Amino acid sequence: MDDGSDDGRGLQRLVTWRLPPGPHNAITDVPGVRVGHATVLDPARGVATGVSVVVPAGVEERAVPAASHVINGYGKSTGLVQLDELGTLESPIVFTSTFAVPAVQDALLRRRLASDADVGGRDGGRSVNLVVLECNDARFNDPREYRCGDGELALALGCASGGAVEQGTVGAGTGMTTFGLSGGFGTASREFGVGGSEYCLGVALVSNFGVWGDLTIGGQLIQTTEPVDRQDSGDDPPDGSVVIVVATNAPFDSASLGRVCGRAQNGLARTGCVTAHGSGELVVAFSTEQQSVREPHPELLNAAFRAVAECVEEAVLRGLVEARPVTGREGRSLPVLRDLPVSAEIFD
Amino acid sequence: MDDGSDDGRGLQRLVTWRLPPGPHNAITDVPGVRVGHATVLDPARGVATGVSVVVPAGVEERAVPAASHVINGYGKSTGLVQLDELGTLESPIVFTSTFAVPAVQDALLRRRLASDADVGGRDGGRSVNLVVLECNDARFNDPREYRCGDGELALALGCASGGAVEQGTVGAGTGMTTFGLSGGFGTASREFGVGGSEYCLGVALVSNFGVWGDLTIGGQLIQTTEPVDRQDSGDDPPDGSVVIVVATNAPFDSASLGRVCGRAQNGLARTGCVTAHGSGELVVAFSTEQQSVREPHPELLNAAFRAVAECVEEAVLRGLVEARPVTGREGRSLPVLRDLPVSAEIFD
Amino acid sequence: MDDGSDDGRGLQRLVTWRLPPGPHNAITDVPGVRVGHATVLDPARGVATGVSVVVPAGVEERAVPAASHVINGYGKSTGLVQLDELGTLESPIVFTSTFAVPAVQDALLRRRLASDADVGGRDGGRSVNLVVLECNDARFNDPREYRCGDGELALALGCASGGAVEQGTVGAGTGMTTFGLSGGFGTASREFGVGGSEYCLGVALVSNFGVWGDLTIGGQLIQTTEPVDRQDSGDDPPDGSVVIVVATNAPFDSASLGRVCGRAQNGLARTGCVTAHGSGELVVAFSTEQQSVREPHPELLNAAFRAVAECVEEAVLRGLVEARPVTGREGRSLPVLRDLPVSAEIFD
Amino acid sequence: MDDGSDDGRGLQRLVTWRLPPGPHNAITDVPGVRVGHATVLDPARGVATGVSVVVPAGVEERAVPAASHVINGYGKSTGLVQLDELGTLESPIVFTSTFAVPAVQDALLRRRLASDADVGGRDGGRSVNLVVLECNDARFNDPREYRCGDGELALALGCASGGAVEQGTVGAGTGMTTFGLSGGFGTASREFGVGGSEYCLGVALVSNFGVWGDLTIGGQLIQTTEPVDRQDSGDDPPDGSVVIVVATNAPFDSASLGRVCGRAQNGLARTGCVTAHGSGELVVAFSTEQQSVREPHPELLNAAFRAVAECVEEAVLRGLVEARPVTGREGRSLPVLRDLPVSAEIFD
Repeated sequence: MDDGSDDGRGLQRLVTWRLPPGPHNAITDVPGVRVGHATVLDPARGVATGVSVVVPAGVEERAVPAASHVINGYGKSTGLVQLDELGTLESPIVFTSTFAVPAVQDALLRRRLASDADVGGRDGGRSVNLVVLECNDARFNDPREYRCGDGELALALGCASGGAVEQGTVGAGTGMTTFGLSGGFGTASREFGVGGSEYCLGVALVSNFGVWGDLTIGGQLIQTTEPVDRQDSGDDPPDGSVVIVVATNAPFDSASLGRVCGRAQNGLARTGCVTAHGSGELVVAFSTEQQSVREPHPELLNAAFRAVAECVEEAVLRGLVEARPVTGREGRSLPVLRDLPVSAEIFD
Repeated sequence: MDDGSDDGRGLQRLVTWRLPPGPHNAITDVPGVRVGHATVLDPARGVATGVSVVVPAGVEERAVPAASHVINGYGKSTGLVQLDELGTLESPIVFTSTFAVPAVQDALLRRRLASDADVGGRDGGRSVNLVVLECNDARFNDPREYRCGDGELALALGCASGGAVEQGTVGAGTGMTTFGLSGGFGTASREFGVGGSEYCLGVALVSNFGVWGDLTIGGQLIQTTEPVDRQDSGDDPPDGSVVIVVATNAPFDSASLGRVCGRAQNGLARTGCVTAHGSGELVVAFSTEQQSVREPHPELLNAAFRAVAECVEEAVLRGLVEARPVTGREGRSLPVLRDLPVSAEIFD
Repeated sequence: MDDGSDDGRGLQRLVTWRLPPGPHNAITDVPGVRVGHATVLDPARGVATGVSVVVPAGVEERAVPAASHVINGYGKSTGLVQLDELGTLESPIVFTSTFAVPAVQDALLRRRLASDADVGGRDGGRSVNLVVLECNDARFNDPREYRCGDGELALALGCASGGAVEQGTVGAGTGMTTFGLSGGFGTASREFGVGGSEYCLGVALVSNFGVWGDLTIGGQLIQTTEPVDRQDSGDDPPDGSVVIVVATNAPFDSASLGRVCGRAQNGLARTGCVTAHGSGELVVAFSTEQQSVREPHPELLNAAFRAVAECVEEAVLRGLVEARPVTGREGRSLPVLRDLPVSAEIFD
Repeated sequence: MDDGSDDGRGLQRLVTWRLPPGPHNAITDVPGVRVGHATVLDPARGVATGVSVVVPAGVEERAVPAASHVINGYGKSTGLVQLDELGTLESPIVFTSTFAVPAVQDALLRRRLASDADVGGRDGGRSVNLVVLECNDARFNDPREYRCGDGELALALGCASGGAVEQGTVGAGTGMTTFGLSGGFGTASREFGVGGSEYCLGVALVSNFGVWGDLTIGGQLIQTTEPVDRQDSGDDPPDGSVVIVVATNAPFDSASLGRVCGRAQNGLARTGCVTAHGSGELVVAFSTEQQSVREPHPELLNAAFRAVAECVEEAVLRGLVEARPVTGREGRSLPVLRDLPVSAEIFD
């Protein structure tokens, strides 16, 4: 554990999951999916924020089947109206701070204008739908001091890769507060086979919700004899959120993907999430498989439903497990899960 | 426990809930809400079915604020389109078997035509929107042999009362299969106070979903050294369902009630529900308070969100705890939770 | 015109439509789609009601792609929740009076139980989702005196056929009031070709909305120097409705069909419809083609969007054009369009 | 007419509307609502674009009841998810080009950060939901050359006022193409009284949809003996749109406002709109009255439904009537309605 490379084995002793994870237990286990981060930390200026990206291979050349689902709509993410109307995703998905959404989206647009002559082209060319998901990191990052933009987006896209994924207080997860602890970016994957075919489903998410005392691991409330200082623990976060991306290579069309999205809430619930009024909780799913099956076999759907719930639960917890102390705005710092006495079993 | 009058104390040792239950830990703790059952059991004919009702006081004279939410729409419940358009409930809510929906709805309509001259009246009078929720009990009850109708509806409405509520394999819960066990009708309530005001929220539901092996109590999978025979345990239910009614006296309008409905899924998830493809899972909520507040205080909403999740989780479990062996169609019978070795702690 | 066999040519002089109608200008122009009516008229008892059916070939053996859309949800139609979740239709579509919905649905269910052993079968067999659409004919038909059921459903299904379709005050259209006139059942079809393929889209609807003075034909308000008696004209219908079925053989999946449904409102709007508060206005669409295209060509979609709007507009008007005087409840009768002085041009 | 100050009287001879317009026949007739424009025209650089704003009084201090409705979701407008979840609007509404959405939204955010210390404040302050509506003006304006931002937003907000509203090819309407003609920004209002109370409803919209040949005024297709050159007329717009803002002082909550939004489509349909696949058509409505009535009288709702349809129809037509020739990208120019021979009656 010292090297921060926990692969979830500690969690898997505490939580009974049924489906096996993929090789990296990450969304990158879905073939063609890459993840990248850009982290900005400058305690002196009160800056602790970042950008993360999930990039399906070739998405800018050919849209992929997609859907979204709003669990609680207190959020400012972009691109969902068109994504739902057409059932397609035509851009990388970007996670960032609420206050950086416009600047990051503008950066994403300018990159597309530069790379794709059809967009805004001379014959009144088509537009492009850009998906940017957000959580509010103002507790850690002063948006008047710093908001991400071109540079961070370029960095995250530039370093996006398959394989193992850095998690915790990294990228868009840097300034997050989850159950009163430093939280962040998490991922997980599951493999499932039905009728001789093998598929993978992966989740990447940024979590920024919950109050200290609600965190639940394997059905057990996480308590501690050395209580977290409530003032420090962010017990009244004004605008929590959790934004979730689901990728799969199962041959799901937009309708089936929308149904998969709806089961993400099952995973959140098992972490102790109350889906609070002020929490923007939403899900975007895509398939890397262009040849959709209109009516997938119920067993395939049910396996995917199980997979997405397990992945979401694990990804929230891994975001906490991997979090490292962050010092942000006005010197603020939150406890991290690994420093709590209760965590011995997880990190052993 | 011998008298079947478990009040959930066994469960409350196993599951950490935060909010206190009302006096009867039942939807009837919401003032003015009554519940009634009619149970039909005739093993010789393969008949095991029933009707249950939730009756808000005065609902036929004055509609109450209401909303619905579809978790998974593989179901045939009626009345939700208008309920959502107008944000009101204007009839008792009836639970019954999928195959009895039309006959029971027709019975409900004829009662209304008999009691209310305005409905279908001489000047082209108004219609009436009737809410009937259903689960498929064909595993236990042969719909070609028997389907409920006038008689059972009259009986359930006639005996509807406040106070303690019979649960388990009773009323519409009679022929239900939950996690491969005999399941059924469950209820629970929670009290919550915000800003000096005290409110109650209660849930009544019929559960008919899940396969043996998924049942989770307090985060722990329920296993047994004497495994349930899979053939008996209904491990592949073709059309599961769980239909949920939420009542509260908090001053919520339809919009807020819709948001409350959305959190019922959190409670289901904690019981091990995977929200399967073939499961009709939906929620109807109403408030007995006519004077709605357009923007309730976030703390009030969050308390209600917490309450509905706790109530749904507990009501599913209490439906299992209270279930008694039922012999239905072709002599079929399922295990009941109280007879499993694993259950000692619950029923102690 | 004397034989009541107007084929819409009068209307086509007044309204500029772009797409050509099919051979019968009826939903039956979509291959495999049949329509049947059962009309019940007994002035002495105040009975004027009926049932109409739209039957896609083989729908009970294999579900077809389908979608629904609620324009205004003040209605009691059944089956839409599951139809939307699964994107399929698995029963004939029945139109009838609001007050006959449960009895007619029960009749449809019993027919299915009798013909299909899987439904409610011995292994806990599957359920079946039944779509019944309704308008309130209580102005013309006393629901305490008569409500349709088994007999009318059997009659309508038994006589269902392709080819020319009887319209106006027939079947479920018998007791309808449209813009204060006797209204009813209407149908229309359009053919459209894109990229060398030819398709047909047809609409059948029952219209029961609007007040005298709003009827618009070809953009012109229909006025008369001999004004309709407002008391007779049904100028304050308490529960209007228009329920619309769209059929096509274009290879649309549920998502595309849902988008087609959304354009039905364009046709209603052009007849003068205000989509009133108390009007249940909804649309169900299905495709007879099982091999759906996930992303149809935009030209194909746009042609279908144009077609559905034209069909809906024409079907409402043809329901009025074909209406014959009906005497119903308490001797009530409404004017029919063909008897108004203004109608000379239409019926010439 | 020479001074471009048509007040719609020409249109009112051609179209039969029932409700009287307000004093300015503009959304500004709703008390407290202001409108402002910033227009950018530089033919030499291929720049023809702009920004328009609708500002409810005090909206940044206290959110107002609001709702949105998607007619066709092929669009990139922002802020609708939260607006629908909470039923409130908390910012001015901005119209601009698709490609300027991020930059304009960023400008709006920075203004808010500068004016409101709570937003992104030191205790992890709240975020703010910003509504920016868009149409694609790439036919007229090269987004690689120019996209609006801070300057235009400041200008539009700075000049926002009540009273008469400039229409046509102005502000966000500058580069629009409606039915193949230069189109643009339009507004209208209606007054309606129910039960002794008088209310006003107004619409402002930017229209960018339709092909030459579909334009319909008062039910009559607009044709011309000197046909518009199809190459010039923008007959195949790749990403049309129409984005509509509805304001009223009627005491509607979010639920009622959502129902009002749904009737905007009736007005569009009467102009000949086919709601094409590639057209982002959506509606945002707000009420300036904080004291909502949960169940407005049906007559009040129906009057508002009628009003919104009339306003939308008229606002689309007035955008065309007021359009002046614009020279944009690559010297492109479209015909304007007032120069067509057919228009004599309108402009007389």
